[in-house]
Amino acid sequence: MKNIMCQGFKAAGVASGLKKKQKKDLGIIYSDVQANVAGVFTKNKILAAPVILDRERIKSGVCRAVIANSGNANCCTGQQGMKDAEAMTKFAASALEITEDLVLVASTGVIGQPLSVEKIEKAVPGLVESMTPEGFSDFAEAIMTTDTVPKMISMQGQLEGKTFTITGAVKGSGMIRPDMATMLCFVCSDIKADSDVLRQMLLAGVERSFNRITVDGDTSTNDMVLLMANGLSGAVAKEPSHIESFQSLLDNVLMDLAKMVVKDGEGATKFVEVAVKGAVSDQDAYRVADTVAHSNLVKTALFGEDANWGRILAAAGRANVPLEPDKVDIFFDDVLMVKDGMGCGDAAEAEATKVLKKDEFTILIDLHMGEGKTSVFTCDFSIDYVKINADYRS
Amino acid sequence: MKNIMCQGFKAAGVASGLKKKQKKDLGIIYSDVQANVAGVFTKNKILAAPVILDRERIKSGVCRAVIANSGNANCCTGQQGMKDAEAMTKFAASALEITEDLVLVASTGVIGQPLSVEKIEKAVPGLVESMTPEGFSDFAEAIMTTDTVPKMISMQGQLEGKTFTITGAVKGSGMIRPDMATMLCFVCSDIKADSDVLRQMLLAGVERSFNRITVDGDTSTNDMVLLMANGLSGAVAKEPSHIESFQSLLDNVLMDLAKMVVKDGEGATKFVEVAVKGAVSDQDAYRVADTVAHSNLVKTALFGEDANWGRILAAAGRANVPLEPDKVDIFFDDVLMVKDGMGCGDAAEAEATKVLKKDEFTILIDLHMGEGKTSVFTCDFSIDYVKINADYRS
Repeated sequence: MKNIMCQGFKAAGVASGLKKKQKKDLGIIYSDVQANVAGVFTKNKILAAPVILDRERIKSGVCRAVIANSGNANCCTGQQGMKDAEAMTKFAASALEITEDLVLVASTGVIGQPLSVEKIEKAVPGLVESMTPEGFSDFAEAIMTTDTVPKMISMQGQLEGKTFTITGAVKGSGMIRPDMATMLCFVCSDIKADSDVLRQMLLAGVERSFNRITVDGDTSTNDMVLLMANGLSGAVAKEPSHIESFQSLLDNVLMDLAKMVVKDGEGATKFVEVAVKGAVSDQDAYRVADTVAHSNLVKTALFGEDANWGRILAAAGRANVPLEPDKVDIFFDDVLMVKDGMGCGDAAEAEATKVLKKDEFTILIDLHMGEGKTSVFTCDFSIDYVKINADYRS
Repeated sequence: MKNIMCQGFKAAGVASGLKKKQKKDLGIIYSDVQANVAGVFTKNKILAAPVILDRERIKSGVCRAVIANSGNANCCTGQQGMKDAEAMTKFAASALEITEDLVLVASTGVIGQPLSVEKIEKAVPGLVESMTPEGFSDFAEAIMTTDTVPKMISMQGQLEGKTFTITGAVKGSGMIRPDMATMLCFVCSDIKADSDVLRQMLLAGVERSFNRITVDGDTSTNDMVLLMANGLSGAVAKEPSHIESFQSLLDNVLMDLAKMVVKDGEGATKFVEVAVKGAVSDQDAYRVADTVAHSNLVKTALFGEDANWGRILAAAGRANVPLEPDKVDIFFDDVLMVKDGMGCGDAAEAEATKVLKKDEFTILIDLHMGEGKTSVFTCDFSIDYVKINADYRS
């Protein structure tokens, strides 16, 4: 947090008993005044109850609070699940003395088990009482599942002499292949902006951040990114140049949060940027980067610190885009490992292996076919990923 | 083999020194007379040299022999790789006293390293000398990489009183997501059939078998399936009803070989049929089955023997086909675990967990949307998969 706070927002996180060992599992974010809000949600056809409820409520463009739990995704829970999601917003609305249609809700955790709403009901008064401007870190902790660290960030910008702040918290570690939205991510700002403007900016920002990361290629049923703006900083994003300034800072916040998710990917030991340039189009570049970033063979080689460029080339070759094998170059950071589709020999491989031993590095694939380029962020595929997911429910 | 041999075919496998520890790494299949031949090859845009060479030579529709090595894929090896592939066919042609254009070639193993053709040159005379009708099992051993067992099968059929035989050998364990062709697979028959007919039958058979399996979602650069038919049984596949009989037996051979590949999938401990019915179309059913069969989260849960149906439903939900969550049923073998999109409770889960403990079982997903159905065959995703692939080149 670096002690940078959004004006007029409070947050908190407590242990309600949904998770074992008194871990924090219930969080709330609250705005002192009505905020404009925008959201993007998972494209998965299996939708968790909170996603179904929020997609309706967010049509009003306004909200005051978001209540979120971990330990249970409230997904594939039928009509009872919908009632439980609504009940969560009622409990929060009652304690906050606002109307329930101004409360959004999010859940994350195991799919297909009934939610113990009575635990949440008991915990909400204490949760609301403990809200503070500094409470975002407790909130970020309360939405963790297999995450190993709470993930949040605050950044500040200026518009016509007025300082505004964007604060975001995110959870996500597995089931990460965002598709228009991802995991749970909550972003607050004290800027003033219409909900339509917020929505456009959020869509653009998510496209450049969360839609460019992958841990395991599975898209969650509970993905959502919410952006609330309460206007209390006095800064206003309405003129194109001001919207551009806000978008720029929002992009930075979203990209940093997205990278945090990959770095905390289940079992991850490496954070790797797969950059592609020289594609016929940006879309082609994305297809190649995405295919390489998802390849289990590439990701296990990364875990093994093996500069196995043949697997990278093989993955690029099945991305179904124009590609001439004898034009492709591959770099590991600044080490040229493949030139014109062929390996550069043992000396290059020795240098590349040094890069592979780092915690963070870039694989650059240059197709030399055109001007298209993009990056996708991924992690390695480790023994711990399998352990975490073989034992998840036990 | 069950001692069923294709008439007029011989095979052999020896150790040439490409692999360590004197393991068999060089194999040959030879027909006493000219055979008609058809092949399907990888759709990966990165093509190994033998694939490039064979795609040209097979246009003649005839061949006498196939030479294959493991331990090196001869892929991303440039012009030298092409020369080396041609050299392999020259060595075989010379020892067999036939012209080299009648010899096809295949390689499998690590990508991007030069092939030691001098080892192959030295080994070929002994290889050819050791050919026998029973040599297919040595051949199947010689094409293994991370495979743990040689994989082959023979089946017999009858046409107008004449018995014909189909014998196939396959290798493949990782980099398995066939796309029109797969890994290395060699099928011989003593039936008589035109190469055009063979090609149609092979395409149809591969579509129903190798294109319905997955181990890790990576398509190889060296995939090929070859079908040779030398006519020595006297049985002829020309009339539609005879072609149908041959196709039926060929399908059985290909499907059995494809299943062997999945069962021997890298690190696999389970063989799982993902069956989908009730989709709007067969293509939709395939998309759902394929998405579930590829999901790392589903596959790690299978390894953990965890009936985590939420992950199956979540994977189905991102397959991008018409699907109504509250209509979906999921069975583990005959245990109904999910009814109308919701879990059937603890008793059902206890029964489902018993199914998960078996080595082989079926996950049936019924979408109740139409008549479309298909199956995809997959394996679980184990700690050993990661170990095998993190250490592959070391």
